[in-house]
Amino acid sequence: MQEFPITRAPASKPKPDPKTLVFGKTFTDHMFLMNYETGKGWHDGRIVPYGPIPMEPCAMVLHYAQEVFEGLKAYRSPDGGVQLFRPMENALRLKSSCERLCIPAIDPQTVVDAITQLVRLEADWVPSEPGTSLYIRPFVFATDPSLGVHASHTYLFAIICSPVGAYYAEGINPVRIYVEDEDVRAVKGGTGFTKCGGNYAASIRASERAEEQGYAQVLWLDGVHRKYIEEVGSMNVMFQVDGTVITPTLTGSVLPGITRKSCLELLKSWGVPCEERLITAQELFDAAEAGKLEEAWGTGTAAVISPIGEMGWEGRHVVVNGGEIGALTHKLYDTITGIQWGTIPDPYGWTVKVC
Amino acid sequence: MQEFPITRAPASKPKPDPKTLVFGKTFTDHMFLMNYETGKGWHDGRIVPYGPIPMEPCAMVLHYAQEVFEGLKAYRSPDGGVQLFRPMENALRLKSSCERLCIPAIDPQTVVDAITQLVRLEADWVPSEPGTSLYIRPFVFATDPSLGVHASHTYLFAIICSPVGAYYAEGINPVRIYVEDEDVRAVKGGTGFTKCGGNYAASIRASERAEEQGYAQVLWLDGVHRKYIEEVGSMNVMFQVDGTVITPTLTGSVLPGITRKSCLELLKSWGVPCEERLITAQELFDAAEAGKLEEAWGTGTAAVISPIGEMGWEGRHVVVNGGEIGALTHKLYDTITGIQWGTIPDPYGWTVKVC
Repeated sequence: MQEFPITRAPASKPKPDPKTLVFGKTFTDHMFLMNYETGKGWHDGRIVPYGPIPMEPCAMVLHYAQEVFEGLKAYRSPDGGVQLFRPMENALRLKSSCERLCIPAIDPQTVVDAITQLVRLEADWVPSEPGTSLYIRPFVFATDPSLGVHASHTYLFAIICSPVGAYYAEGINPVRIYVEDEDVRAVKGGTGFTKCGGNYAASIRASERAEEQGYAQVLWLDGVHRKYIEEVGSMNVMFQVDGTVITPTLTGSVLPGITRKSCLELLKSWGVPCEERLITAQELFDAAEAGKLEEAWGTGTAAVISPIGEMGWEGRHVVVNGGEIGALTHKLYDTITGIQWGTIPDPYGWTVKVC
Repeated sequence: MQEFPITRAPASKPKPDPKTLVFGKTFTDHMFLMNYETGKGWHDGRIVPYGPIPMEPCAMVLHYAQEVFEGLKAYRSPDGGVQLFRPMENALRLKSSCERLCIPAIDPQTVVDAITQLVRLEADWVPSEPGTSLYIRPFVFATDPSLGVHASHTYLFAIICSPVGAYYAEGINPVRIYVEDEDVRAVKGGTGFTKCGGNYAASIRASERAEEQGYAQVLWLDGVHRKYIEEVGSMNVMFQVDGTVITPTLTGSVLPGITRKSCLELLKSWGVPCEERLITAQELFDAAEAGKLEEAWGTGTAAVISPIGEMGWEGRHVVVNGGEIGALTHKLYDTITGIQWGTIPDPYGWTVKVC
């Protein structure tokens, strides 16, 4: 494993109360940084005290959003150790995001090594209360001090870490969602399959409107036909219809989620029929009204599994599984979180011990 | 006019040689800053020395690209004064961009006042060589130190200025473009009508590929049907076909350009028939092959007018006006630049004297 030089913070900050952690607001003592420059490539990987980065006002990222990110977690296992969940998948997706955004890709093993070394250094920051974890945010952005619209010649790759609370501190409660029919998150030929900032910026308005109307999130439709379901909020989405699990296929505008992939692998290993295909809102609401939509859930790193209890679309309103979390949804949640926190065996080799 | 407090730079930087200015690389001595905070609104507008802005690594703009910008210029007129071109149009478009991105809008008059005061302070930086100007870049970005995906509660509005050289230092030469058929810049329901960073990030790959193949830019097709022409590079586009000027209508995925608007107003005042409507690539290439495509040009703040000399699409290749700039294209360029630099009268009230 590559080892990067460490400049230690003069003192460790006080740890926040693990019972009241808010997502992404508290950061650990250190961060990883690495620079890119045309001709030199990626260089000078290092761990330094967490703190502000001086930014030129003309830095490209502030104008043209040439930026991508990843998200994963480190988990405290029952033996007191710390482990990651499929970090190479994040490193590979970061590479794919970089390529679409014309950012020079970072060697995936270097990304995993940097994450591992940083988490090892910050191991005291991985909380041990049930459901808590250390959220890890790798991100890359363009730093050229120039306003020309083209790929930057310089970039910064950073990794920061934030202890986060249990997503379901008050138990898993299925959420209400509705089909968004005005705003579009992504379109084929665009950047929907990447984790680039622009996708998230474009999604904020619909999320805010959903919240105002008492919904937790929106169900996104494709931008071309406005009829195929793509994602729910910033998660992938799955439905169990008449015994078969269906999920939108990766057409280029859907994020290839790592929790999505893990769910599909688990379901197949359990012998549950799965289909990755185009799914219309029409088909879904028809199935629900015919009593065939058995379960529905979102998948993502933050929530792992987010059961959907109610859905609205063009005046139609359906309740899924009586508004309760379904058995399959629960089994997926228990299995993935069990593997992540090391409370059940990991026959898939998904976890990577850090310390 | 609102006046903002000024903290002067201790010394003025040396001015670059106006003959070798590169776009967006040199900045003036001062910048304008203003903060937003939920509950306080936009406040603390001020002019300070130009320099790095300390940025939290978790600042929202670096992750979710909640950011918008504008671009306009200050021109040195023959009497030695300095003037702006339709600055209120930029301020209004900034408001529209902010609204789509869930950024609290800034009062347009405040934006114009800030631009005016900053340019007045930096008047020595407005070059006077032919074709040179002072490029003005207002921009707004989300600064919340938090990784949650939602609208930020804090923002920074900044204005920076850069002296720029003549766009056509070696004369106006028509460019070669081709129709992009893989990547999509924007789609209806997305953010195409705004100047948000994500649009530009999504466009970089196609522009790089075009350059590699010896083209100056790409002609973007709509993301839904992949047949209607939308923009050329980061400019609006116009064609004269059989005596009528046609330009893509503002369907939501096309930027409402201020040069575009000015061209249409001029053409109408000259009695040239104009149509804002959907235009297919098919129609355009058919017209060209039938000898009816008389002129073609892009419109934007940087180039003002960029004549198109050749176009490629699916193996078809057409030359426009023998590869020479057309008479109408030239007249538009001469008129708009004449008004901007104050060398001809401005009967439209487009220019605003700064000093």
